[in-house]
Amino acid sequence: MTSALTLHEYRLFPSDPSMRSIARRLYNSVKDLPIVSPHGHTDPNWFADDEAFPNPAELLVKPDHYVFRMLYSQGMPLEALGIAPSCSTEIEVEQDPREIWRRFASNYHLFRGTPSQLWHDWVYKEVFNINSRLSAATADHYYDVISERLESTECRPRALMDAFNIEVIATTEGALDPLAAHKKIMSEGWGDRVVTTFRPDDVVDPEFDDFVHNVEELGRLTGCDTSSYQGYLNALEQRRIYFKQHGATATDHGHITAKTAVLSNAEAEDLFNRILVADPDPGDAELFRAHMLVEMARMSLSDGLVMQLHPGSCRNHNKPLYQMFGRDIGADIPTQTDYVNALKPLLNAYGSEPGFRLIIFTLDESAYSRELAPLAGHYPALYLGPPWWFHDSPEGMRRYREQVIETAGFYNTAGFNDDTRAFLSIPARHDVARRMDCVCLARLVAEHRLDEDDAEELARDLAYNLAKKAYRL
Amino acid sequence: MTSALTLHEYRLFPSDPSMRSIARRLYNSVKDLPIVSPHGHTDPNWFADDEAFPNPAELLVKPDHYVFRMLYSQGMPLEALGIAPSCSTEIEVEQDPREIWRRFASNYHLFRGTPSQLWHDWVYKEVFNINSRLSAATADHYYDVISERLESTECRPRALMDAFNIEVIATTEGALDPLAAHKKIMSEGWGDRVVTTFRPDDVVDPEFDDFVHNVEELGRLTGCDTSSYQGYLNALEQRRIYFKQHGATATDHGHITAKTAVLSNAEAEDLFNRILVADPDPGDAELFRAHMLVEMARMSLSDGLVMQLHPGSCRNHNKPLYQMFGRDIGADIPTQTDYVNALKPLLNAYGSEPGFRLIIFTLDESAYSRELAPLAGHYPALYLGPPWWFHDSPEGMRRYREQVIETAGFYNTAGFNDDTRAFLSIPARHDVARRMDCVCLARLVAEHRLDEDDAEELARDLAYNLAKKAYRL
Amino acid sequence: MTSALTLHEYRLFPSDPSMRSIARRLYNSVKDLPIVSPHGHTDPNWFADDEAFPNPAELLVKPDHYVFRMLYSQGMPLEALGIAPSCSTEIEVEQDPREIWRRFASNYHLFRGTPSQLWHDWVYKEVFNINSRLSAATADHYYDVISERLESTECRPRALMDAFNIEVIATTEGALDPLAAHKKIMSEGWGDRVVTTFRPDDVVDPEFDDFVHNVEELGRLTGCDTSSYQGYLNALEQRRIYFKQHGATATDHGHITAKTAVLSNAEAEDLFNRILVADPDPGDAELFRAHMLVEMARMSLSDGLVMQLHPGSCRNHNKPLYQMFGRDIGADIPTQTDYVNALKPLLNAYGSEPGFRLIIFTLDESAYSRELAPLAGHYPALYLGPPWWFHDSPEGMRRYREQVIETAGFYNTAGFNDDTRAFLSIPARHDVARRMDCVCLARLVAEHRLDEDDAEELARDLAYNLAKKAYRL
Repeated sequence: MTSALTLHEYRLFPSDPSMRSIARRLYNSVKDLPIVSPHGHTDPNWFADDEAFPNPAELLVKPDHYVFRMLYSQGMPLEALGIAPSCSTEIEVEQDPREIWRRFASNYHLFRGTPSQLWHDWVYKEVFNINSRLSAATADHYYDVISERLESTECRPRALMDAFNIEVIATTEGALDPLAAHKKIMSEGWGDRVVTTFRPDDVVDPEFDDFVHNVEELGRLTGCDTSSYQGYLNALEQRRIYFKQHGATATDHGHITAKTAVLSNAEAEDLFNRILVADPDPGDAELFRAHMLVEMARMSLSDGLVMQLHPGSCRNHNKPLYQMFGRDIGADIPTQTDYVNALKPLLNAYGSEPGFRLIIFTLDESAYSRELAPLAGHYPALYLGPPWWFHDSPEGMRRYREQVIETAGFYNTAGFNDDTRAFLSIPARHDVARRMDCVCLARLVAEHRLDEDDAEELARDLAYNLAKKAYRL
Repeated sequence: MTSALTLHEYRLFPSDPSMRSIARRLYNSVKDLPIVSPHGHTDPNWFADDEAFPNPAELLVKPDHYVFRMLYSQGMPLEALGIAPSCSTEIEVEQDPREIWRRFASNYHLFRGTPSQLWHDWVYKEVFNINSRLSAATADHYYDVISERLESTECRPRALMDAFNIEVIATTEGALDPLAAHKKIMSEGWGDRVVTTFRPDDVVDPEFDDFVHNVEELGRLTGCDTSSYQGYLNALEQRRIYFKQHGATATDHGHITAKTAVLSNAEAEDLFNRILVADPDPGDAELFRAHMLVEMARMSLSDGLVMQLHPGSCRNHNKPLYQMFGRDIGADIPTQTDYVNALKPLLNAYGSEPGFRLIIFTLDESAYSRELAPLAGHYPALYLGPPWWFHDSPEGMRRYREQVIETAGFYNTAGFNDDTRAFLSIPARHDVARRMDCVCLARLVAEHRLDEDDAEELARDLAYNLAKKAYRL
Repeated sequence: MTSALTLHEYRLFPSDPSMRSIARRLYNSVKDLPIVSPHGHTDPNWFADDEAFPNPAELLVKPDHYVFRMLYSQGMPLEALGIAPSCSTEIEVEQDPREIWRRFASNYHLFRGTPSQLWHDWVYKEVFNINSRLSAATADHYYDVISERLESTECRPRALMDAFNIEVIATTEGALDPLAAHKKIMSEGWGDRVVTTFRPDDVVDPEFDDFVHNVEELGRLTGCDTSSYQGYLNALEQRRIYFKQHGATATDHGHITAKTAVLSNAEAEDLFNRILVADPDPGDAELFRAHMLVEMARMSLSDGLVMQLHPGSCRNHNKPLYQMFGRDIGADIPTQTDYVNALKPLLNAYGSEPGFRLIIFTLDESAYSRELAPLAGHYPALYLGPPWWFHDSPEGMRRYREQVIETAGFYNTAGFNDDTRAFLSIPARHDVARRMDCVCLARLVAEHRLDEDDAEELARDLAYNLAKKAYRL
């Protein structure tokens, strides 16, 4: 059976007529604002080279960890989706993108009620103009239509940037990245619209794959002697400036905890030497990461890059899968995260500095009302980032607003991030956020807790102004 | 004053007319589906012997820990409810069931807004056909009507099984239970409708009362030498098969934490010997439970019994009460529960095995969105059980759906369990779950996040199919 | 632009017409009940001296830590609000109250969606009869109107007590307070309406500023030898009676955790001596607090003072700010709080004693459904206090009801506390609580989970009776 694919004009709005009509008015005032995407993981080569995207499976299934994670959870081996082990094995990997697409299509019912369905349906309808729902029956039709559309010039990355009304997008690159793509982007006049972000986990986290080698490489790139602690700091400072020259307005840090620590120079030097040369003690890696977050804050204060912290993901939980397929294969699981004690050293050192800004994210929603809203509602430097990852969803957004705003207000939050590598879904993600923000505001208005003119101003701030301001874009 | 007792046709449905009418349509399509009750604590002797239930107090007050807990919290001594101390004391225990019933009735206002009231009112109205609300004024009327009805053949357990449209119900028995009742049930042709569940805490948890004695008894029952670790494992394997022969499709494990551990055979043997013979080290009991969960998973993979884990209850919190009245007397309190680190060893060992299935429950709702949905949305073997115990309530169910579905989808959940010993309330409990699931779906439909035909299919899955599939019934 | 300031008659009520009309009926039946304010921080000198309040900034900005916290979080230095460092510095402190008021007014948009706005707007409209919203444009108008009104006799504290219909209000004093204000209040016939509360943190918490000196002072005040443990206990017992003679019906305890401990007399004596004289061990302070909570419970059982525990605030998180401005300057942040294990010693000792009552609060909402509702739903002595501090807000109240009532019922809760030093906002705070309770009840009625006559009775209990009963007022 083929059923109609529709995107209802009032989707995500409450069914209560008063709230719905207020939500609609607010949404209409912001839905066409340009998209500001200050944090994400799109591939800068797309914007540098402006070539056609590959086939539907390569574009929409294989790189989307929300998608293959769900399929895997219901028994679909990753190799059946064309995902290849990182080391040579005898496993047969599906090579036919059409077959991969069919497998996804046949299991599309698994995504009912998930944000993935919201995002994908928007892409199918709005980008590819498809009018029937995805299912086993329509899999081939989808494959053909999408494949054809992807060949057209309207579907090239830069054309989509315009069509999507994306004013500016930030990608994320490791500290060792040469930024060749961004160089090309700048040279072709797109440097205001595509910027990089400095993500130094690979040279700051001693437990990162090849950390010691990475630090050496950092030395080579900068001409600093990174075998000494001072040289290492100098190299990081230089590298930050290099990223800033390629458009970066922010850094990003993905740590397992939010722990921060202030060490004396001598302590830090000893720690660095233990980690780099001698046998580190247990706890050294965690302490080094904690210390380096404070060092990064210090550098932020000096170079003006906005600092982001994304803590609390237990990476590669499924060890056998990780050993076969490597990082980022869908088995990252949130953990309980302390912020109050963890952030205290950093916030005591720099949290009241006018020039410093830290945007913090969480995978542990229990911290919203207990820790994060009270912290953001006190420290001048601290802003709360939008719902992240698993919580970037209608219910996640609702919980965020309900648990954060009463204590932190709207103006200690940082607007919306899509945080995605799924370029085609970016408008859908911002649209969900704008709708849900308007729903939140509409409820406040309908319950006479906010005047509608204030709500209109807030709707624009949440959809556009706050992100630009928070990220200095 | 006697007021009318009414069960509104649309109870639990939202008052918003659009949502209510969708909820009604969905509910009408599932309300008459047979009840599948894959996990609970009814007494198998009821179904084996099919005798009349005793008086109202004995049936509806004394065994219901939700009821006597609330009365106790407002100052009613347990002995005033006819609950006798387990050791001889001089406390006078109320013997008159009518007096006990009056005390309950006079305090029925304490249950306003609780699920107990929903369940009890359903029983009064639907099973006993009573039309006035329970109160001090109607206590005797209730007592007389219920007593008389309980004598009738329509109120015998098997007749109620039919009247309640219960397709299959699972009871729960300890590893040492001879399963005499289930034998009789099978011999009388009811073996498809009443099955057992293997609950080996008494022989797996070193801190269980009489553990060492229990392990000896396990040896006697199976003919294995349970003084050796290997004999102990063999005995458990045999016992599982014995339960399977009496209808079991699942095991159940009630541990204080969700900790799992993989030990080598030699380590496990040493640990077993320390626990059974020598003085165990601190932490040995916890480590043994952790290890045995992984062993149970290994056995599940081989015999096909679905594994259930119910962690996180701090049992017998009120020590003086426990010393006087023994286990299960209402002072079990949920504790914070870690799943991410705790389950990792087990899930790394068996979580991607196609033949293995683990259904996990929680008393710590903060783990829904942070840990459990992400884990269930990744590991093929892992399913998330329904809201448990204190959270088996309208608001608990709402929080569960709102915090789980967006990440895990509907199809990594295991349908509904009533988990009750209160047989008469089973239809009421499933009815609450069906209504709340339809409310959840109706909201998604009303907000244009789900098509109504998909919602109808999901309503049937949630009410019936998922439980059968998850439990291999 | 000046916009109209309106307080909508149905503010905070749901927009759904059925729920709204039920909420309105329930609210109309309770809105005029007298206010019972059993826990708070108003200044007893106000009621003793009955003098005019100072200027708008001194009354409404400087003492309100919700207000200056939010302004600080957006970059406003405390000294710009007239808040003076506690030690001499060269910082220039704003002296002009009108200028301070203007700064607040210009930033009033920061409070959109926060309870501060609800409370302040009520005060502006209902106490000062102002009809335009607060903003930079109306700042001077506000300042003039409020200043003039504050001079009038209708705005004196006792007149406002009557106008606000406050039946009784409790202030909170440290153990060493001479209670001079309360003496005067009693001598002038207001002793039934203004009572004190015994808050002994300064002589019970070894980490309190000047603890050792405070214990000496306690000895002087009571004539007991507080250098001995027994003399210390005697002094506390006497001091409690002294407070009781000045109206106290309750004690209050603000600890960093909820930890309790039962020590033998000898252990306690040793601990006391280590703390007072010798070098205490790490952990001694926490253990002493834990032990003293149990001692306080013992004393409560004897003198009948209701015990309150407010745990879980990490005080003075912003150390540099604390060093400059001292305590209570807005950098208190909630932390994760365990209750199940922490309270077990106290509850095992006294939790089932008919004469004892403990009212517990939380800043960690994740404990509501997991720990606090199950504990309050079991122990006779335990009552759950209303949403506290950051959670004393519409959404905080909604979460409280939704997460507590299904397990603990309504009757194990202690009614509403405003817990404020902002006297003028007390009616607004009780009004918000009454509205939100009626909204909660209206939803239960509209969804046919509660009969409306029961809801009416509950509305009165929640608004008035429960607080009086819980606090023995």
